[in-house]
This record gives sequence, structure tokens and C-alpha cells, in this order.
Amino acid sequence: MKATMKDVAKLAGVGVGTVSRVLNNGSVKASTREKVEAAMTELNYQPDFYARGLKMKHTNTVALILPTVWHPFFGEFAYHVETALERQNYKLYLCNSSGNSEKEQEYIQMVSQNKVDGIIGITYSDIDEYISSNLPFVSIDRYFTEEVIYVTADNAAGGRLAANELYRRGCQNVAYIGGYQETPNETKSRRKYFEIECRQLGISYKALDMLEPLDHLSERVTNFLLENPDIDGIFTINDPMALAVIDMLEKIGKNVPEDVQVIGFDGQKMTEGDPYLVSTIAQPTKQMAEVAVAKLIAVINGETVEKRTVLPIEFGEGGTTKPLVRNDFA
Amino acid sequence: MKATMKDVAKLAGVGVGTVSRVLNNGSVKASTREKVEAAMTELNYQPDFYARGLKMKHTNTVALILPTVWHPFFGEFAYHVETALERQNYKLYLCNSSGNSEKEQEYIQMVSQNKVDGIIGITYSDIDEYISSNLPFVSIDRYFTEEVIYVTADNAAGGRLAANELYRRGCQNVAYIGGYQETPNETKSRRKYFEIECRQLGISYKALDMLEPLDHLSERVTNFLLENPDIDGIFTINDPMALAVIDMLEKIGKNVPEDVQVIGFDGQKMTEGDPYLVSTIAQPTKQMAEVAVAKLIAVINGETVEKRTVLPIEFGEGGTTKPLVRNDFA
Repeated sequence: MKATMKDVAKLAGVGVGTVSRVLNNGSVKASTREKVEAAMTELNYQPDFYARGLKMKHTNTVALILPTVWHPFFGEFAYHVETALERQNYKLYLCNSSGNSEKEQEYIQMVSQNKVDGIIGITYSDIDEYISSNLPFVSIDRYFTEEVIYVTADNAAGGRLAANELYRRGCQNVAYIGGYQETPNETKSRRKYFEIECRQLGISYKALDMLEPLDHLSERVTNFLLENPDIDGIFTINDPMALAVIDMLEKIGKNVPEDVQVIGFDGQKMTEGDPYLVSTIAQPTKQMAEVAVAKLIAVINGETVEKRTVLPIEFGEGGTTKPLVRNDFA
Repeated sequence: MKATMKDVAKLAGVGVGTVSRVLNNGSVKASTREKVEAAMTELNYQPDFYARGLKMKHTNTVALILPTVWHPFFGEFAYHVETALERQNYKLYLCNSSGNSEKEQEYIQMVSQNKVDGIIGITYSDIDEYISSNLPFVSIDRYFTEEVIYVTADNAAGGRLAANELYRRGCQNVAYIGGYQETPNETKSRRKYFEIECRQLGISYKALDMLEPLDHLSERVTNFLLENPDIDGIFTINDPMALAVIDMLEKIGKNVPEDVQVIGFDGQKMTEGDPYLVSTIAQPTKQMAEVAVAKLIAVINGETVEKRTVLPIEFGEGGTTKPLVRNDFA
């Protein structure tokens, strides 16, 4: 049985109006607020933001959960999220989760406690049970349920585009190299549609797909490269993996892009204005941030929004691919 | 005349106790709070956190102001600040200022309004008048006054070390390349002590020091390099400048580190576990973050702290310097 506002009031020994004032950050004695919050925690009370129909007193704050802001892609995303929030007069709480699901849950609970208005999350840990459809939450790159809003780049089209870009640059023996996690997420489409496209193009396809954490990465990739000396084009799960693969290729005497062309995924740049780290399938990072912010604020304001947004990717030249040799797409 | 709590109370038409409750996030009607806050803004009232001697109701939030989190050094710093704050049960507001002093001021005013407990700032814009000695504020790399707490790496020792590392790797004709801003900051010591050390070592020294913003950077650096073909070692203001200089050296046919060795400053890594981008004078970024957090929380809790902390730097090998050829230091 889901706890109601009445249950909380009863346990805290206060009226329902007081519980409502606590939820809306109204004027309440500190000791009363603490009692009510303790009761909410004990009963695992989750206010239903949609059904409640109360005019909330907003905190005008949003939390961003990501693995680490010390990273070209997540750093860029965080930068654009904060910039977009600022235009709406919102402040950003930053949470580097390092994949720690308890820390992620703590921020999610801050929404129930009305300490933040909503959350944008790039999460890979097992927090499904905490993400309910009435939580103002926008997920990036990860699907929870049909009811949870999410924003993602078109990973399927990205996989297909990578295959075509390698093919159009003369590759005939291509490989996919990546890592994956047990939790479902959109990035798995990268490999899947790369493979589908390679078969359609009629080029040889191999894959090295490794369950994370990636132990002995260097050894496994090097063995894979040595066992498959004909490979002339590689698509990787993301740009850091492309950089690692390039390093290993050079160590076994292969030149990039002369002997082997490499395409990553993300479109990472160290900072604004810099070139791409590698040739890449670039995500529209800024647009993803702006859409995530717009959706979240709409939901905070009680509006109904489309749950799923898929944004277009594009090829970004970063010096690890050769010029085009043919112009046909599959 | 500095406005007092009494002035605020009079203008707002409330008692001093009410102003105090507003400052301490106590129970106050929303309309009253708004009146009091308007009076504070009108009178430019700055609560004196030290003299007041009130037990503050803390928000347990700290704001971090930096130019952009989408940057290897600032991203790493932000990551470590948030991690250190979390251990103290504090949350972090992230502010990418992009050098916008109005945005910086807005966060500084949030402290006066008791919306955040304190600020850690990497700021380059002209906000001196907003940084008072009774504001819980820790400055990174920038000196305001004797009364403002600041944490910095030992830039002077870094400049000296860069000269020695180039000398010990065989350089005889070295140069400094960097940009600077009008506002005073600690990073100017990098050039100054590099030069002093070169003279002590008896090696030839030249400098290209450019006022920011760096227009026509590529042209100016290339001309400098072409006019000084004997240069065999370069120290740059930071790692991004080192990367840019390496790019320009390669374009004029010089190999790094064979023909010219290059040392940057910062110790930037794209993400945790990655190698240095270039050979570098590495700042103790994590330690700087931890000290900044410890100092700020001490001040928030009314403690007195040493105002100036200088932390040690070290040389980090990043592939753009040669092995040692001599072991003597100047």
C-alpha cells in the first residue's frame, strides 16, 4: 500500500495542512518539519506531483546526476545543462555519482522532499525502483519505462552512419570494439545497427564486445587486432575507446588512418572551440541538454510532454579517417 | 555608511528579530521575507558573518564558480570539490561563469541572502568590490586582499622547476609562451620565476607573452618560432597552450620532443586514470579542492583559518620532453 499524505500526518502527529506546507516549503517550525520529514522517510512517502494538483512552491533548483563531470562528454553536457537552466532562472546541483547508486538515490529523494524540483540523470546503476513515472526526471541515453521521459541521440542511425563512413572511405574489413553493461541503455544500438549496415553493404564484419569493467583491455584488444590483421576500419563504442584502440594499433606498427581508419562515438572535444579528439559520430550534446532542460521544466510546471526524444547525429572528421573514395550510401 | 540590520528592519517595516529570522532561514511569512530581502537589496546590506556571532541555520550548500566545467582542469577541480563536499554532507551549486561578472555577482549575493553558505571561486573578472573579507569565500589562484582566503599551487616553484627540467633534459635556448589578463593572479609567477631560473642556469631565454583575448594566436606564435629557430625548449602558461604550440611546431617541420621539448602547466588529464596531455608542471588539483573545501567549511562554522595556502607542484612526464641528460639543479 502506497503511503498517503494522511498517513504521514497521522504518524507525525500533525494535520494534513502541515504536511502540505512542508511539501511546499511553506512556513513551518523547524522541529515540526523534521518530524514530518522523518514520517515521510519511515513510510517511504512519495508525493504524486501530477495527481496532487497543488501549486508547488518551487525551489528553482535541478540536480544533474552523471558519472563524473571530469570527462569531455559529461563536462560538455553539464556545461550546456547549467547554461540552459540559467536562462530559466534555475540553479544546478551537480552530483558526480561515480556509478554509486546510493548517491543517485539520495538526489532522487531530494525531489520527494521538495529540496530540488527535478532531476536530469545520466545513470548506469540499478536505480529502476526509485524512478517512478510521477518523478520530475529526465533520463539521458537510458530507457526505464514508457512513462519515464528520456532524451537520446539516434544511436541506431549512428551505428549505420559509422558503417557507411568507413565503407565510403574504402574499408572492406571492419570491426566493432566496445564495452557494455548489464543495464539496458540506448548505446547498445550502436553496435547492433553498425553490424546490420555492414551486412547490407556486404563488407566483412567482426566484433569485440566486452562486459564492463574492462579488465585487461589492452591485452584483449591487441590480441583481437593481431588475430585479425586484415581489419582496415574500426568503429568503437565511444571516443575514449577509439583513442585507446589507436594507441594499441600504433604499438603493433599500424598507422592511423593509413592502415586502419577509426571512428568513435560522442563527438568529444576537450573544451569549446577545440577539434574532435578522433573522427566520430557526434551527438548533438548542446541540443540534448537544451531539450532535457525544456522537458524537465515543462514537467515541473505540470505540463504533459512527449516521453521519448531522439535527436540526430552527424559524422565529425577528426583526423583518424581518410578522404571519401566513393559517394554511395547503402 | 554600511547598512545595518536595524536599517533593513526600519525600511522593511519589521523588527530586527524578523530580519534575523530571514537571514537564518527561520519561519517567516513569504510576503515578509520578500519585503526584507527587497530592503536588503536596496540598502546593499551585507551581513557580517564573523561579527554577527549568530548561530546560522546552514543551507549545507556551496556554490562553485568557474569559467567552464567543460575543460580538463576545471572539470577535475569541480569533480574533487563536489566529492569533498559530499563527505561533509554539503551539496554543490555549479556556476559556469564564462567570465561573466554579473553571473558571478549573482552567486556571491546568494550568500548574503543565505541561499548558499559559501563560495569557492576560480574567477578572472572584475568582482573585487563584491568580495569582502566577511564573505565565506575561497579564491583559487587569485589574490584579492590579505583578508580573502585563497588556495593556489606554488606557481613560482613551478616556473623554476620548468626551467630546471628543460635544462636537465639538454635545452640551452628556451622560451616562455603564454597569455595574461589585466586582473592580478598567481599564474603570472609562472613566467617570472621561469625567467629568474633561466638566468641563474645561464641559458638563453626569450618570451612571447600576449594580452588576452588571444587574437591571431597561431600567426603570432608561428612568427615567434620562425624568428627564433634556435629554441630547443618551451615552457607555456598552461597545457592547452602547450598543445597549441606543439601543433604549430609540427606545422613548421619541428619534431616534439626531438627538436623542441615542451612543458605545459596544470597537469591536465582528460579524465581520471588517463595520462598527462603533455609534459607538465602538475598542480595538486585534488588537494587544492580538498583544502578549499576544508577552509570554506571552517569559515562557515565560524572558525579562523590561515588566509593563504600554497601547495606544492611536481613535474609530470607526458611525452613532450626527452630523458634526463644531467642531474644537477640550479
